Amino acid sequence: MGTQEQVLEVARRARQAAAELAPLPRGVKDTALHAIADALVARSAEIVEANAADVTAAREAGTSEYMIDRLSLTTDRIAAIAAAVRHVASLPDPVGESVRGYTLPNGLELRQVRVPLGVVGIIYEGRPNVTVDAAALTLKSGNAVLLRGSSSAYDSNSALVEVMRSALAGVTGGEVPADAIQLVPGRDRDSVKHLMRARGLVDVLIPRGGASLINSVVEESTVPVIETGTGNCHVYVDAAADLDMAVDILVNAKTQRPSVCNAAETLLVHRDIADAFLPRALRALGERGVTVHGDTAIRAYAGEGATVVEATEEDWGTEYLSLDLAAAVVDSLDAAVAHIRRYGSAHTEAIVTTSQSAARRFTALVDSAAVMVNASTRFTDGEEFGFGAEIGISTQKLHARGPMGLPELTSTKYVVTGDGHLKGV
Amino acid sequence: MGTQEQVLEVARRARQAAAELAPLPRGVKDTALHAIADALVARSAEIVEANAADVTAAREAGTSEYMIDRLSLTTDRIAAIAAAVRHVASLPDPVGESVRGYTLPNGLELRQVRVPLGVVGIIYEGRPNVTVDAAALTLKSGNAVLLRGSSSAYDSNSALVEVMRSALAGVTGGEVPADAIQLVPGRDRDSVKHLMRARGLVDVLIPRGGASLINSVVEESTVPVIETGTGNCHVYVDAAADLDMAVDILVNAKTQRPSVCNAAETLLVHRDIADAFLPRALRALGERGVTVHGDTAIRAYAGEGATVVEATEEDWGTEYLSLDLAAAVVDSLDAAVAHIRRYGSAHTEAIVTTSQSAARRFTALVDSAAVMVNASTRFTDGEEFGFGAEIGISTQKLHARGPMGLPELTSTKYVVTGDGHLKGV
Repeated sequence: MGTQEQVLEVARRARQAAAELAPLPRGVKDTALHAIADALVARSAEIVEANAADVTAAREAGTSEYMIDRLSLTTDRIAAIAAAVRHVASLPDPVGESVRGYTLPNGLELRQVRVPLGVVGIIYEGRPNVTVDAAALTLKSGNAVLLRGSSSAYDSNSALVEVMRSALAGVTGGEVPADAIQLVPGRDRDSVKHLMRARGLVDVLIPRGGASLINSVVEESTVPVIETGTGNCHVYVDAAADLDMAVDILVNAKTQRPSVCNAAETLLVHRDIADAFLPRALRALGERGVTVHGDTAIRAYAGEGATVVEATEEDWGTEYLSLDLAAAVVDSLDAAVAHIRRYGSAHTEAIVTTSQSAARRFTALVDSAAVMVNASTRFTDGEEFGFGAEIGISTQKLHARGPMGLPELTSTKYVVTGDGHLKGV
Repeated sequence: MGTQEQVLEVARRARQAAAELAPLPRGVKDTALHAIADALVARSAEIVEANAADVTAAREAGTSEYMIDRLSLTTDRIAAIAAAVRHVASLPDPVGESVRGYTLPNGLELRQVRVPLGVVGIIYEGRPNVTVDAAALTLKSGNAVLLRGSSSAYDSNSALVEVMRSALAGVTGGEVPADAIQLVPGRDRDSVKHLMRARGLVDVLIPRGGASLINSVVEESTVPVIETGTGNCHVYVDAAADLDMAVDILVNAKTQRPSVCNAAETLLVHRDIADAFLPRALRALGERGVTVHGDTAIRAYAGEGATVVEATEEDWGTEYLSLDLAAAVVDSLDAAVAHIRRYGSAHTEAIVTTSQSAARRFTALVDSAAVMVNASTRFTDGEEFGFGAEIGISTQKLHARGPMGLPELTSTKYVVTGDGHLKGV
């Protein structure tokens, strides 16, 4: 079989598995999740061994120690992954939830109920724990999953998927089909291409990773896509801000974990507060090793302990994911909103202000997945939002926006019950 | 300017208009809708005159009288269109609705609120009333709209859009931007192509029309699409059905209005009830002029007054939109479900049964936008479902499924309020 036929074959099996999964009650799915967690722990040694092959290959390819660390699995890490699976089992099942229901004037009873999406494809880079997290969340929400991880983690992912599938096969006589969890065959980009063209077999693709991966999926896929993750997040310090709070939020948003999508990448400061705020802010950023890419007005405040370089047009649109920060002075709240609208990625923006009317206007005008008032951008996260888990953060407007939990992995259907109702009579 | 530049230019203006529309309160939008309704009535003569040019051209091109009738506008029809606009004004505004809200353990207050999608493109065939209906629904939900109607209605649509834009320009000093409603320039297919590639400017495309239009948009668009409308709807008559009810529902679903997407296209009959049901059903269908495309088992029941021809494999997947009906005998409810899964378009399926367990199993296993129990498939409709209006019927699983009302023309954003909340401290 060629790569295309192989990909279509796993997609067809996933489609069949999805039909079997959809009506399963929560109890069966939770039993399966616990069986997966048990198997991961019991077979840790095999998984670590498979992972060692990936790690060796990555070392030989000159991969950075940071990336090697992300790739590496240990018995402890596998135990943590298994614990996360048990946590997913403890979450409510979104399937079957009635989200709307009433009786129509003609007596028809209408209910809108959550159903699984069907077959979900996840294309991801980096850490092999995503393989298990994604499988657990899709299984809990009644979906079959097609996993397409990084080729650098292929042996690890293969081992993890094999362990999960075996666990499913052992559950209550195979009631949960093993084909609910499948790895997309093939290490090359061709398999991604065929997955993106499997419209009719795959219901949705969720790319998780860098901007180039996400853009290529969005551009080329005929399967519907949920775009995730790019975050050029802004912190706007209003004329009326509490200065201590503003410094703390800025530093937290930029430095608490710079490599993630909800970290701040651009600072906008109201002109009226620049004199009071910027010397302190630039010093605090400098102390944490942040390089500020400032416009002319910002650079005028560069003093001792601060690292400030000249911002180019490109800086305003950049997601650094590092200890860099673009910064500009703006004439008004509306100018800040206009800047965000022009350069932002509509992920998360924060305003720091003591003014109720400024907070109200900012939250009304800024059209991003999350708008924070007097809080760090770093809170945009499924766990923080109380969803219990997260499959990714959508930066698109259709279907789901912001952190996606289990309900965002479902669709709905209408069930309408009558007693012989006819139209127009 | 070439066509591409013209399309991008209207899209850019729509994007700007969308930003201005999003924060407008309901009162302003409703005033604008009433101004549009007033203007349509006041300027009926101009609209009828523009429409006459389309009608003349259609006649010269040999268009059928049925299509000419659909295309034609009269003063009375324009009054009805204006009344529909006033009805949209009377509906609740979905924008600003809080769909989720709670306080997190750390004291952050989280609210998920409805916001407009932004710029909505509608690609449609047929009747010019869609031009006004779509504009009213998108305006009410705070969206800017790009309208791309049939080239055969170009002059009518141009006149309608000009009247609506002038009305907006006159409302409360132009607070509602006229660019909220725009016609996509150009009569040829090129303009559709450029609209489908305007990712980043257009937030969603909704194609309304025949299967070939919808398929081409779904295949070629890089802008997210909401697929609508194809309905290969099934009526399944269970072993335990009430025979009178089954005949009535079948006849209603097939013949009450055969040309629409929620009309029945396939009948499936449980083998155990075939002897009792089919002679009556085939006679009733025959009396209404329905041609039944039956499998071998069905054809055995063809008697006086019935028109039954041999079904080919193709019939099972056909949306006739005419007085034709595919029909098969199945061995079980599960066989009916399998048939629907294989050949259906996941629009609407109905079961006729007196058995609670059969109804429960059918509604659990059939994965369609709407599943009817003892009711005609013809009820899948935004008005019937109590939504007050409908922009189309989604047959996809992402974002919206089934009839789409005003809330389905919105996205959401999270507004999170703290008092200096920092992550991880």
